[in-house]
Amino acid sequence: MTKKNTTIYDISKKLNVSVATVSRALNNHPRISQETKELVMAAAKEMNYKQNNLAKALKSGETKTVGVIVPYINTNFFSSVIRGLEEELSPHGYHVIICQSHEDAAIEKKQLNTLLNTQVDGIFISISRNTSDMEYIKEILATTNTPIIFFDRKKDIPGISTITIDDHKGAFMATEHLINQGYKNICHFSGDQNLEIYQNRLNGYIDALKANNLPVIKENIINTGSSIEEGINAVKSLWKRKIKPDAIFSASDFTALGACKEIKNLKVKIPEDIGVIGFSNEPFTQFMELSISSVDQTPVVMGKISGNVFLERIKDNSSGISIEKKLVLAPTLYIRQSSDRK
Amino acid sequence: MTKKNTTIYDISKKLNVSVATVSRALNNHPRISQETKELVMAAAKEMNYKQNNLAKALKSGETKTVGVIVPYINTNFFSSVIRGLEEELSPHGYHVIICQSHEDAAIEKKQLNTLLNTQVDGIFISISRNTSDMEYIKEILATTNTPIIFFDRKKDIPGISTITIDDHKGAFMATEHLINQGYKNICHFSGDQNLEIYQNRLNGYIDALKANNLPVIKENIINTGSSIEEGINAVKSLWKRKIKPDAIFSASDFTALGACKEIKNLKVKIPEDIGVIGFSNEPFTQFMELSISSVDQTPVVMGKISGNVFLERIKDNSSGISIEKKLVLAPTLYIRQSSDRK
Repeated sequence: MTKKNTTIYDISKKLNVSVATVSRALNNHPRISQETKELVMAAAKEMNYKQNNLAKALKSGETKTVGVIVPYINTNFFSSVIRGLEEELSPHGYHVIICQSHEDAAIEKKQLNTLLNTQVDGIFISISRNTSDMEYIKEILATTNTPIIFFDRKKDIPGISTITIDDHKGAFMATEHLINQGYKNICHFSGDQNLEIYQNRLNGYIDALKANNLPVIKENIINTGSSIEEGINAVKSLWKRKIKPDAIFSASDFTALGACKEIKNLKVKIPEDIGVIGFSNEPFTQFMELSISSVDQTPVVMGKISGNVFLERIKDNSSGISIEKKLVLAPTLYIRQSSDRK
Repeated sequence: MTKKNTTIYDISKKLNVSVATVSRALNNHPRISQETKELVMAAAKEMNYKQNNLAKALKSGETKTVGVIVPYINTNFFSSVIRGLEEELSPHGYHVIICQSHEDAAIEKKQLNTLLNTQVDGIFISISRNTSDMEYIKEILATTNTPIIFFDRKKDIPGISTITIDDHKGAFMATEHLINQGYKNICHFSGDQNLEIYQNRLNGYIDALKANNLPVIKENIINTGSSIEEGINAVKSLWKRKIKPDAIFSASDFTALGACKEIKNLKVKIPEDIGVIGFSNEPFTQFMELSISSVDQTPVVMGKISGNVFLERIKDNSSGISIEKKLVLAPTLYIRQSSDRK
């Protein structure tokens, strides 16, 4: 005869109480009396009832769940990293739960605590725009054993592995491509300089100009965020200048899109009169009528590698090793109509 | 050596007393002797035990966390519903964790269990394309007190509230708009007919034709999914016909986008020779050079109302009431270049 695992139905039958009561008693629900709870617990023990995965997890220290915190989910970049993560971790039985920080350091910290409280086995973070002090991370590292991994947007914190792309190289390639196309007065839409990724893109732009003996003009570095509107406004203010730029390297595809819209509005020709290149290779850059050149960050690969770093960390953990990894992926340039004068 | 968090199980094992005793001792329960309490406290201190919020949550029955399961996060529709949900629930102290089903019923079920095991206070689901049998949901409803709420893609299950938009009306409005623009041979790209939302859109299309005394032609209903490629392929096959359609009402914006791309390829003029309208009002429909008409589903509002249904359910729960709600929102038609012949 096959042995069957005891279910809450069996306990309910034995005690002649409802299934819901048994479930609540086992989960220490406040509306169930202490007496009933003890009765149910005793029956559960006697009948060798095995509680659910959470109870097992509390015992084993494993939930087979990992958490991801991203600024927001509605860009191709972050959703693709998460897809890569899931592709890497699913075959190993892990589930991925996702939280948004909405670019807010305070929310990010709360989400981190939520994930720790749900006993995830690992946490992947791409930090928010205004995250600066991360002292609490050090405390978490000191008091728990949950691996924390940064991807794309990171801080350098001892004990935390990071997976990034070479933003400097991507920006250098994009700028040099514009120079090779004959553009000379190249502006940069810089993105939020609180984030390393945008600092690196700015430096890549500057270094490409220098390497090609072009002057670095302070006024050509325009502070923008990453929205379509900011791209539109940046072009509007540029067109009030006497000497107009003949190319834009934007650290964001959305700002590049806004720029293209406004340039068309002004009846200026792309790529003849002005070249535009973005960053991230969002899908819309391809399917626009005038397709937009961009730098691809291989987000799915970034997700897969992040997942792999976690799996190795788990393996290392059980043998007592802890290796901090800093992995940097190479970007790819996609040249499309918006910057191709040939 | 590996650091592992001490759990009450570890303390229970060390002292050879039950887990329940440890838990009660830690919580200063009157029925536990002073001697046992001191023993447990001493062991907890020695073993560096930190009572986590999850344990506290098991006691109070609340984690202030809710879970959302969506087919995928990378469309504006789902990410906007989630945004609305967060806007509604954050002021009440709730955090939102997100899972993707990747349009797979088996993964959806696993994610549901993951969320239940992490003791979320409520679960919001928009079901996957191939979800059919949901018997397990009934068991969950019988054994837990966790509210489950369906939004957009739903099944009718007693005890589960649903928040949807009136897809029939949206489709009716879109089709009638094409008719009013003078289009007569209107095709429909139907989406996955396993999902109620697409069945309702198909019926809205059929009813609008009938209401306007136009024939319903079986061959004009094209089975598509929701991808750009399927839109391209559908137009390719339509253009092999002797009599071409003069308008397309697509149940998906992505399929509408594919259709527009291929129509331009064929050098056919939009909206003069053929009108196109999509469904969902994805942001790209506005920012295309030839903007695409679409039906807006007010996803942020849908998310807010879903969150509100949950909050009311929690309130009702504590007073022992359980009201099943079926809320239907009204869609809005956005007329853009792709279907505006005036």
